[in-house]
Amino acid sequence: MVSDGMSTGTLNMADLLLQRKEGRRSNWLKLYEQNLVHRGLVDTSSANALVTDSAAGSSAWGGGVKVPNGSLNVNADGSFNKPILQKFQSAGKSVGCVTSVPIAHATPAGFSVNSASRGSMDDIAKQYLDLKFDVLLGAGKENFSSEKRKDKADLFDGFKKAGYDVVNSRDELRSVESSKKPLLGAFIESALPFALDASSDRELAAKIPSLAEMTDAAIKKLSKNPKGFVMQVEGGKVDWAAHSNDVGGLLYDQIAFDEALKVAIDFAQKDKETLVIFTSDHGNANPGLFGSAANFDKIQTFKNTNDWILRGITHRFTPAQVIERVEAAQGYAIKKEEAERLLTFYVAPKEEGLYNPYKLPFKQLGEIQSAYTSVSWAGTGHSADFVELGAFGPGSELIKPYLKNSDLHQIMLTAAQVRV
Amino acid sequence: MVSDGMSTGTLNMADLLLQRKEGRRSNWLKLYEQNLVHRGLVDTSSANALVTDSAAGSSAWGGGVKVPNGSLNVNADGSFNKPILQKFQSAGKSVGCVTSVPIAHATPAGFSVNSASRGSMDDIAKQYLDLKFDVLLGAGKENFSSEKRKDKADLFDGFKKAGYDVVNSRDELRSVESSKKPLLGAFIESALPFALDASSDRELAAKIPSLAEMTDAAIKKLSKNPKGFVMQVEGGKVDWAAHSNDVGGLLYDQIAFDEALKVAIDFAQKDKETLVIFTSDHGNANPGLFGSAANFDKIQTFKNTNDWILRGITHRFTPAQVIERVEAAQGYAIKKEEAERLLTFYVAPKEEGLYNPYKLPFKQLGEIQSAYTSVSWAGTGHSADFVELGAFGPGSELIKPYLKNSDLHQIMLTAAQVRV
Repeated sequence: MVSDGMSTGTLNMADLLLQRKEGRRSNWLKLYEQNLVHRGLVDTSSANALVTDSAAGSSAWGGGVKVPNGSLNVNADGSFNKPILQKFQSAGKSVGCVTSVPIAHATPAGFSVNSASRGSMDDIAKQYLDLKFDVLLGAGKENFSSEKRKDKADLFDGFKKAGYDVVNSRDELRSVESSKKPLLGAFIESALPFALDASSDRELAAKIPSLAEMTDAAIKKLSKNPKGFVMQVEGGKVDWAAHSNDVGGLLYDQIAFDEALKVAIDFAQKDKETLVIFTSDHGNANPGLFGSAANFDKIQTFKNTNDWILRGITHRFTPAQVIERVEAAQGYAIKKEEAERLLTFYVAPKEEGLYNPYKLPFKQLGEIQSAYTSVSWAGTGHSADFVELGAFGPGSELIKPYLKNSDLHQIMLTAAQVRV
Repeated sequence: MVSDGMSTGTLNMADLLLQRKEGRRSNWLKLYEQNLVHRGLVDTSSANALVTDSAAGSSAWGGGVKVPNGSLNVNADGSFNKPILQKFQSAGKSVGCVTSVPIAHATPAGFSVNSASRGSMDDIAKQYLDLKFDVLLGAGKENFSSEKRKDKADLFDGFKKAGYDVVNSRDELRSVESSKKPLLGAFIESALPFALDASSDRELAAKIPSLAEMTDAAIKKLSKNPKGFVMQVEGGKVDWAAHSNDVGGLLYDQIAFDEALKVAIDFAQKDKETLVIFTSDHGNANPGLFGSAANFDKIQTFKNTNDWILRGITHRFTPAQVIERVEAAQGYAIKKEEAERLLTFYVAPKEEGLYNPYKLPFKQLGEIQSAYTSVSWAGTGHSADFVELGAFGPGSELIKPYLKNSDLHQIMLTAAQVRV
């Protein structure tokens, strides 16, 4: 289970937010508190960089070898490392991926395929069809739909013909619970909504399953195999929120990941034969709480993310309207000059009606917001930080105090007693 | 052993710097790699804040109770918690403190005294005289000297009369190695030079012992007691460097701390009866490496800290002179407008000869430097982050995956089989 781009402060602040808002700890920390885990500090570097990207990060786990950034289980010399889900599949286990971002995105793909370029997502989706994995749940509809794919192939149809249940909504996901067919759900283009935005949009929340719901559906299906199963679950929008210094996006998606962790741990506690490893592929933005509880507590009543705020602003907005939008979303009033600073990024298109995507001021809103929440950020990209890893269940004793990301590959195989 | 204000990224980057500069890992990480430790993730909050200061942080360990920020083992209601070094002293053990900052500063004081205000450093130094601890080594001469103390008391003389060896230099420290007297060394006013600056100043380095040398001297003295000993070692300038976003100060002082850790571990490995706990009291500034190895590698040839750079600039400097000073210290040329930005902080005094301390642009130089080193910072203060803790030796098994800072008090007593 991967909270993508989770810096130490992300784990810390999500736990603090839950403690202060709901009087409970995160499931992650609860497992630590109850002394139910083995922990490791993980080096995350890639073959060619101290700071990894998610493709090389997931490939280190998936292929057991550090590869160059951008690559999925392809070495610098062009040779391939066999992805771990293919190894487990060959051993007769059921396998699958669940994510809040495109299923063909770097982190699920690193467990699944070989590709010299993580950007070849249309191709990765096609590889999935050939691989016949048992469960694929997430977003990135565009890599499967004939309208959006460059080659115009209808992969949804392809999966149906290959015997898959292809689901489009939370209700459809529920309706196939007892089906024995393999399962594909790419519920939305790009990525699931941020958990915070979904919580304020009943229609969206009704249509799109949460990461925890997808995890639950995946486990129900995969666990039917008497030979066992292996799955990867990714909280991918934790990383996206960190890139845009979006504290509401970050912490509520970390909590959504934490709910998915609970689903997995609940299963493993009953099952007693399941190892759950939960970690991150790299730090991102190194956020932290640097001030008062009173400021931090404002995040408790956030209704929407910075992403939601900024995407709804246009060059026609007045500063007063910007102030109103921020206040409606997050409960505090920014200053007029702060609103004006944001509006400088919204430039009118030269011709009326011309499509002109704004370069949204994520970093600037993150900076402005720091004064109100006391959360601030060291960057807008991945960091070289060591990351936290916890492991629960049989095999967790294989986790040593320090490990390289690539060590996890053999640990997973050993724990599952799979020899390749 | 406390690396004060050590965020995850500080531990990570010091290890990376050593790997790339010297082809070896930090001692901290080597212990992890060799699977010789128990690790805990530590909550660092204080009685009245999510973000602790060093006084409340050290008091949580020292008194076993979270106290309000600024306080040394004094609760909000004015009641006292007995400091752990006093407990160990009562049990017949030798006790001491070693630090790179004033001995009367918050972190050593939190193990030692009760004081409603960490700022009362003259008073804390006087308490030390009454307590008759066996070893006090560090800086903060001003809290002991009759010239600088507000009450004009000569504490150095007081310690001598009380039977102490009072040493003033590295040579004097060596010369009392076989003495059986208790030992006070406050080698310099304020704090030891940053390790990086000391490495470029032979005279300074010859006069002032390093943290590792002080640790070695302290262990030699304290370990003579057949009933055992307890000491605290603080790398205090790691925190100071983080506050000023000074990457050279930070990483080379983290390495200096790591050398002191080696001294303690080497002793403990031979002794086999010594528990060494190494951790931090809180995060600070959440720095991280966010870019290329080539940029990061510039730090390998740094000669001086940002602190050294900024303290040597005056309002009479030209931008070219600022550029030259930065390049001499750190090997890269900043831009003219960056030099001009720094110079805006150096304002001429209104009357010639009038003392007018500059407000030094630490944060600004840290920002400018980020483009050259790829290291950046989330703030200039303490963070609420969980911190890393490792423990080596008998009793280390008492460390659980998660603990509160205040839990460490009882763990130390239990490990030493001291009942109070």
